[in-house]
Amino acid sequence: MPTLGQNQYGKAECRVVRITRNGATHHIKDLNVSVSLSGDMDEVHYSGSNANVLPTDTTKNTVYALAKEHGIESAESFGIHLARHFVTSQESISRARIRIEEYAWERIETAEADEAQHSFVRKGQETRLTQITYDGERWEVVSGLKDLTVLNSTDSEFWGYAKDKYTTLPEAYDRILATEVSARWRFDWADGERPMPDWDASYAQARVHLLRAFAETYSLSLQQTLYQMGSRIIDNQDEIDEVRLSLPNKHHFLVDLEPFGLKNDNEVYVAADRPYGLIEATVLRDGHEPRIPVDLPNL
Amino acid sequence: MPTLGQNQYGKAECRVVRITRNGATHHIKDLNVSVSLSGDMDEVHYSGSNANVLPTDTTKNTVYALAKEHGIESAESFGIHLARHFVTSQESISRARIRIEEYAWERIETAEADEAQHSFVRKGQETRLTQITYDGERWEVVSGLKDLTVLNSTDSEFWGYAKDKYTTLPEAYDRILATEVSARWRFDWADGERPMPDWDASYAQARVHLLRAFAETYSLSLQQTLYQMGSRIIDNQDEIDEVRLSLPNKHHFLVDLEPFGLKNDNEVYVAADRPYGLIEATVLRDGHEPRIPVDLPNL
Amino acid sequence: MPTLGQNQYGKAECRVVRITRNGATHHIKDLNVSVSLSGDMDEVHYSGSNANVLPTDTTKNTVYALAKEHGIESAESFGIHLARHFVTSQESISRARIRIEEYAWERIETAEADEAQHSFVRKGQETRLTQITYDGERWEVVSGLKDLTVLNSTDSEFWGYAKDKYTTLPEAYDRILATEVSARWRFDWADGERPMPDWDASYAQARVHLLRAFAETYSLSLQQTLYQMGSRIIDNQDEIDEVRLSLPNKHHFLVDLEPFGLKNDNEVYVAADRPYGLIEATVLRDGHEPRIPVDLPNL
Amino acid sequence: MPTLGQNQYGKAECRVVRITRNGATHHIKDLNVSVSLSGDMDEVHYSGSNANVLPTDTTKNTVYALAKEHGIESAESFGIHLARHFVTSQESISRARIRIEEYAWERIETAEADEAQHSFVRKGQETRLTQITYDGERWEVVSGLKDLTVLNSTDSEFWGYAKDKYTTLPEAYDRILATEVSARWRFDWADGERPMPDWDASYAQARVHLLRAFAETYSLSLQQTLYQMGSRIIDNQDEIDEVRLSLPNKHHFLVDLEPFGLKNDNEVYVAADRPYGLIEATVLRDGHEPRIPVDLPNL
Repeated sequence: MPTLGQNQYGKAECRVVRITRNGATHHIKDLNVSVSLSGDMDEVHYSGSNANVLPTDTTKNTVYALAKEHGIESAESFGIHLARHFVTSQESISRARIRIEEYAWERIETAEADEAQHSFVRKGQETRLTQITYDGERWEVVSGLKDLTVLNSTDSEFWGYAKDKYTTLPEAYDRILATEVSARWRFDWADGERPMPDWDASYAQARVHLLRAFAETYSLSLQQTLYQMGSRIIDNQDEIDEVRLSLPNKHHFLVDLEPFGLKNDNEVYVAADRPYGLIEATVLRDGHEPRIPVDLPNL
Repeated sequence: MPTLGQNQYGKAECRVVRITRNGATHHIKDLNVSVSLSGDMDEVHYSGSNANVLPTDTTKNTVYALAKEHGIESAESFGIHLARHFVTSQESISRARIRIEEYAWERIETAEADEAQHSFVRKGQETRLTQITYDGERWEVVSGLKDLTVLNSTDSEFWGYAKDKYTTLPEAYDRILATEVSARWRFDWADGERPMPDWDASYAQARVHLLRAFAETYSLSLQQTLYQMGSRIIDNQDEIDEVRLSLPNKHHFLVDLEPFGLKNDNEVYVAADRPYGLIEATVLRDGHEPRIPVDLPNL
Repeated sequence: MPTLGQNQYGKAECRVVRITRNGATHHIKDLNVSVSLSGDMDEVHYSGSNANVLPTDTTKNTVYALAKEHGIESAESFGIHLARHFVTSQESISRARIRIEEYAWERIETAEADEAQHSFVRKGQETRLTQITYDGERWEVVSGLKDLTVLNSTDSEFWGYAKDKYTTLPEAYDRILATEVSARWRFDWADGERPMPDWDASYAQARVHLLRAFAETYSLSLQQTLYQMGSRIIDNQDEIDEVRLSLPNKHHFLVDLEPFGLKNDNEVYVAADRPYGLIEATVLRDGHEPRIPVDLPNL
Repeated sequence: MPTLGQNQYGKAECRVVRITRNGATHHIKDLNVSVSLSGDMDEVHYSGSNANVLPTDTTKNTVYALAKEHGIESAESFGIHLARHFVTSQESISRARIRIEEYAWERIETAEADEAQHSFVRKGQETRLTQITYDGERWEVVSGLKDLTVLNSTDSEFWGYAKDKYTTLPEAYDRILATEVSARWRFDWADGERPMPDWDASYAQARVHLLRAFAETYSLSLQQTLYQMGSRIIDNQDEIDEVRLSLPNKHHFLVDLEPFGLKNDNEVYVAADRPYGLIEATVLRDGHEPRIPVDLPNL
């Protein structure tokens, strides 16, 4: 009989919006929460007995109930509440993994400043991410972001590369460098007894480090830029031990305008879709082991 | 033999990025341009003779060449250059329609302010839109935006509606109202001899009017909010005669927490995907005829 | 005060699956239904009074209730039931437009033929479409399909076209021609007293005519192929008076392998994404007026 | 200084279409190929020296050149050619991972059977997948599929599950069970000296086993169905040692028609989008170690 290997289950993509009212001033948290539970689940796979299976519908209900009971201070703290709940309340569940996407909103400015403290426009830039894993003893928190698109219109070169018989690319001494940052960083916080990092402050810092390292690096290759981005976080944020980056090279090709008698002095580019270079790497605090998987999940 | 009706052709989704260098300070324009040409095109449909057909590949080349020759001051002015070029330079082409999507970027703030005037992060909020139509005599400019998501966490009610035997909805006296604004507005500018509006200033104003009207309207129905949003533009922007809005009602349902012994005092909502209410209407300057189609194109 | 122009509202994208059991043999219909209602709706826009507004939630309920009461014989007949219901049952509603997407399923073949007459796999090819409009007197039925991707690996040329100073395209005497068909066709059935066409048979015929006309036309331009596709329907299906086609030219470029000492004898192509040629036209039965809008809606 | 961990790079999503002509009968292969290379790449990350970096543009060229030189017999065999090429021809590259998506086409049937042997319509059902990894010694081939949507309209129950204070789900004794299959299976072929499996025959068999196991299992939980699907492959295909399945529970909820005086006898369902249950597990040949990652990559 075939063996059952790693397995997990739960409700994915529970969309929860939490409004907090501070007098006339409202605050909003907008999350997409996915729950994955593991434990003593052999029987349901082999025979269909659900005795150990808390329904995915219940895991969904729990997301909404805990949003009421605990509020949502940050994505990370909310995920910690959820993971602890499942592992400590269900004997058959020994491990919980909570993934959260967070969508940022900003206030709509109205004519009278005090008028519309309940009106928001979605920021629409990057999506903030976190993944909380708990096995009853150790915590692992991996946060990050995706869909943050950045571009340098100069200070990027690419030359001196290896060549073989299929190489036709001309060397470039002044090119556009653009990418859509997908990043994950792992916190050193693993012991629930220790005080937690300030999750929101840490996120804000990591985001700035990524942006500034991208902007401030004179780039000879996207790999070099990637390493600088990851290092900036490791060097400046003691609470983070590992960063994984997946950087598609969003090619902007200089258009050949010579057939039309025009000179293109790094002015007109075509933004290409596919194919794209894809540069991926892990940057680690010295002496630490990597734990973030090679393939970053989309959700 | 079947008759040929309205027809048009051209290259769609030409992605052009234009960098302008002002010393060390760079500026970026990022457009997605679609060209549709009409004219004396019966023969190519009936017999396949391409004698009157300027290739779509040429229309693509023209987008890039004109980006160099004229620069891109605004999406609207660039579309006007393109439409004029096609109609005046090709005898067989009597009408050109140029559609443009524009993606906004903002500067990355670096440690030293003067350091990275060539580094950008995509703003990622709404997409700006314009459509230029020219038949050799009259111009029609319809601009707008899509994917601007807004939410009021209070000041919205829905009650007193018609009921039939399929009605089960309870009346609501304090609900979330959220939508993803898709708007188009038509300029009164039609005579190429007249001075053009300030396209960028007009766009900025219309965007603010939409946001503020949404925020400042105490809403008894999304239709009422829609009319206020359109009216705000018509009342304040003389250069615009018609507004069409397509507003999906992005439902946020209050979660029933009573089964868990919890009271949900307008705090925890589920953000639903489908189905969604869809409210669409045109708001016109008095005495003007509508010209924007009922179905807003996606591109 | 600004004038209210055309307006409509309703619930969009109601996903309804209808199972019919014929003994152990089950049948499935899988639809995505969008309702748009118009009528005496000025007041809700001007003042927010909902007295004439049947809630969009009710229109959703009606979709599910009528799926039970009438069954779903075809997308068109179901849309006709819905449109008639809204216009005849609500005094304030004078016009209904029902749009339906239909997803096809086929049976999973099992070891014992009689075993699994309730198991289906989604066909996943084109999406069938229909739009029913009713104003209490006249019916308009426009059906069609989208996302049907076809390719001819030969029998396509493109040469003899107009050239200007921006033309660089070399002429082609044997190229791949590929497109993703989006088609709409309008039925002559408008009088509810007349017998309806056989909607399913008509759809099956139109689909075959589109595919065969694409395959059997030796093409000198995509416009010529388009006209043949539309004409094939008009010539063979008396119940249809108008066809509108939107055909993106899904470019397949021959890869230049000469730098590698290889000859590419129409063997290796790159399938490009953007930009793409876009060819759109209406083909009409002689003497009839066009009614399908120039821009085909996405839904 | 932060340490560089796992890293890889290459060109992603190279779209290659290969036409093979057998007289008037053409054959088509339509792939999306992504290359990831690893090796002696520290320097490019630390200093930006590209001396060891074969450009991603070259890896793209290689995809097209090898499509000419070797043809595309199957996605797997083509990926093996590519991986071997990179590892054996570049000293700095010690490991190659090739991911391929394959889109299936079927012939358009024309009036005269011999007429259009060069006309195709995209099948549009599942996407076939493979991933080839080669480190110069061992091969790993993981194939699979995604986006295969299946539905049983009966023979599914869900009851007897664990309950806590957040459980409200009623037990179900006859429900729709639907999912969108994402599957990966790992071949035992690792030694390049051994004869390869018949990749196409193996794929066809695995696809049938997944479909039939889904259809033929009377299901008490989706976990049980998943295990049956994986076991069917392991039990019947000696060349496969491990299967990983990711099965979203595409919920079809019975609509409550009682408020309208109607009885819903398992006839009318709403197909829900989010949230969805997500059931994931590995099924292994007894005595083998799992190697497919827990999170299946999207590409």
